[in-house]
Amino acid sequence: SKTWNNRVVELARKAKNLGKDDPRKVVHSLKVALALTLVSLFYYFKPLYNGFGVNAIWAVLTVVFVLEFSVGATLGKGLNRMLATLLAAALGIGAHNLAVLFGKTGEPILLSFFVFVVGASVTFLRFLPEMKVKYDFGLMVFILTFCLISILSYREELLIMALQRLLTIVVGSCAAIFVSIFIFPVWIGEDLHNLVAVNLEKLGTFLEGFGAEYFSEPQEGVSIQEKPFLRRYKSVLTSQESEENMASLATWEPRHGRFRFRHPWKQYRKVGDLTRECAYKIEALNSYLNSKNQTSFEIRSRIQEPCTMISLATGKALKDLASAMQEMVQSSSVDSHISNSKIAAENLKALIKSGLWEGVELVETIPATAVVSLLLDLVVCAEKIAEVVHQLAS
Amino acid sequence: SKTWNNRVVELARKAKNLGKDDPRKVVHSLKVALALTLVSLFYYFKPLYNGFGVNAIWAVLTVVFVLEFSVGATLGKGLNRMLATLLAAALGIGAHNLAVLFGKTGEPILLSFFVFVVGASVTFLRFLPEMKVKYDFGLMVFILTFCLISILSYREELLIMALQRLLTIVVGSCAAIFVSIFIFPVWIGEDLHNLVAVNLEKLGTFLEGFGAEYFSEPQEGVSIQEKPFLRRYKSVLTSQESEENMASLATWEPRHGRFRFRHPWKQYRKVGDLTRECAYKIEALNSYLNSKNQTSFEIRSRIQEPCTMISLATGKALKDLASAMQEMVQSSSVDSHISNSKIAAENLKALIKSGLWEGVELVETIPATAVVSLLLDLVVCAEKIAEVVHQLAS
Repeated sequence: SKTWNNRVVELARKAKNLGKDDPRKVVHSLKVALALTLVSLFYYFKPLYNGFGVNAIWAVLTVVFVLEFSVGATLGKGLNRMLATLLAAALGIGAHNLAVLFGKTGEPILLSFFVFVVGASVTFLRFLPEMKVKYDFGLMVFILTFCLISILSYREELLIMALQRLLTIVVGSCAAIFVSIFIFPVWIGEDLHNLVAVNLEKLGTFLEGFGAEYFSEPQEGVSIQEKPFLRRYKSVLTSQESEENMASLATWEPRHGRFRFRHPWKQYRKVGDLTRECAYKIEALNSYLNSKNQTSFEIRSRIQEPCTMISLATGKALKDLASAMQEMVQSSSVDSHISNSKIAAENLKALIKSGLWEGVELVETIPATAVVSLLLDLVVCAEKIAEVVHQLAS
Repeated sequence: SKTWNNRVVELARKAKNLGKDDPRKVVHSLKVALALTLVSLFYYFKPLYNGFGVNAIWAVLTVVFVLEFSVGATLGKGLNRMLATLLAAALGIGAHNLAVLFGKTGEPILLSFFVFVVGASVTFLRFLPEMKVKYDFGLMVFILTFCLISILSYREELLIMALQRLLTIVVGSCAAIFVSIFIFPVWIGEDLHNLVAVNLEKLGTFLEGFGAEYFSEPQEGVSIQEKPFLRRYKSVLTSQESEENMASLATWEPRHGRFRFRHPWKQYRKVGDLTRECAYKIEALNSYLNSKNQTSFEIRSRIQEPCTMISLATGKALKDLASAMQEMVQSSSVDSHISNSKIAAENLKALIKSGLWEGVELVETIPATAVVSLLLDLVVCAEKIAEVVHQLAS
């Protein structure tokens, strides 16, 4: 029908845009396909097949589960998978050896009991935050492998089977890790690095534009919604979870490019937290841009110069910090922007002290004063961010 | 060694607290263990084993992957798993029938080609946001099953194997769904409902306490950090992702308790978004509680009465909204709190107009004025939230 057609066309259009926006996603899809095809060769070549038999399918399964978009995630899952399989297989063999002592009737009862205990306790462990972050997949594999080994041991030759399975899982994991690292690798550490820098840059863009926006005469018909640079910062408000996730995955990654193995990924979370603090203030600022409850244009414009200076200087400082971070250099221009913003802040205070709003109803000035207060806070905020970024660069 | 011992003790202590805080997690662990044990019976009973053979392990695998904490997640994964397996098996059999036409040499080449194409295109589909939310697991299973079927078909009797596999997966999924729904079910829709209500309640608690905190004389030694009710709202700032996730999983759930099948879960996201808007303003308010840059106590205290009234009335309104929501009733007290807060807002404006800060340096009053502005905004914000919650209840 027509609507179905439309939906498919729509989906295809979106997929095309997705590929254009981030070609790495297309490359990743091809990498997965390549790894699957490589691993499936096990099955087609007779000598390989004879070594592994039906167990070769575990290599395929491993590739599907382990090969993730980034090297960090793939390494994390691959190591989890191998280690958990090894431990669970060892424990499973132990459980089998214990169970056989109880005869043909006792064995399944004891095995069921083991499955129950391991299933319950390891599932509970998965809820613990410190386990969840780094070892969730490993715990899942542990349950799975332990159950399979102890169940299958009831009817099959155990040791050979366990070894074969372990070997195919190592093969699958290594294939996934190899493809992930050596064919157009995507380093999640680098993504985190860029994300944090881009977030700073987004805030900078907002602040650079804020002055002109807030002190311009209201125009008919042009809504703020149409100015995308004033909305880009919104994504910073909600980026905490992905930053934490990325920082944790990045710790799996070996040295690459400009990042060494024990790069201080935790520092990025500090920068990220400060950036978000700043973003919350910007969210508050933004609400004064198109609020109905507004100080009149004439009164506002009396503080235009220092306010615009503050937001411009702070914005430039954040943008320079972002590009200094991106290039991993110490930026000298940041300090001068920061001191400019401080000078502008002092000017603003002096201007207000000079009585520029004398005779104006205090109630009238409430929103504009709130903007002033937020801008003064942002100066402090930007300075704090600059400090932490400097620490990171050194 | 000692440190290892300490670590284990620490972990055990944390696990105990986790179980105390949310006994449902303990119950879930037992449910997983039960489902695994049930499914493993397939293997121990000879008649069942003869029907399914080694394929019975797929039931175990399915339970481990499908049985999630909430009914919504389990149903989503179970349906995804069954549907994707069915479709992939059908496509895999088709691919096999096509490939055999090309002879013993052509077959593996063609099969590899199919694996490559399906692997690449479906992996790419997984990146599409509309697919990722609801069908990610299904797409993964699709790749897996298609690869397995088309690879295994090279050496095994295809149709029987595919049917057996499908059947064991249906058995595994149904076992997981059964255990999830009928043994102490955890409904994610209810969790979402509670989360949104608790978030409102947290903001209310902050606002109720804010007035007393802001207008109290600074005490030596008692830091704001020690008052946990002033920090509880922080979690609201970052709850967007989990709310969206829960709202999407909740759509899988059937009618239960007070929730019908097509409960308007999207409305919760609206309430959640407004709550967060409010939380951003509260974050800004909070920064004035222990800021160094503060209007002096004497000047602040002149606006104490109406400001305290506003924050108290808004706080009560939010808390009553929260409990009305929790009990799914229309609350009458909310409206009176809201109109109280509006009256207080008018009083505050009148007070400021009356010139209570005459003679005071304008610069001195900046932080206090910002607080006033935020409180006035919060009155509007709370009213908006009340409207949406009323809509939800009706």
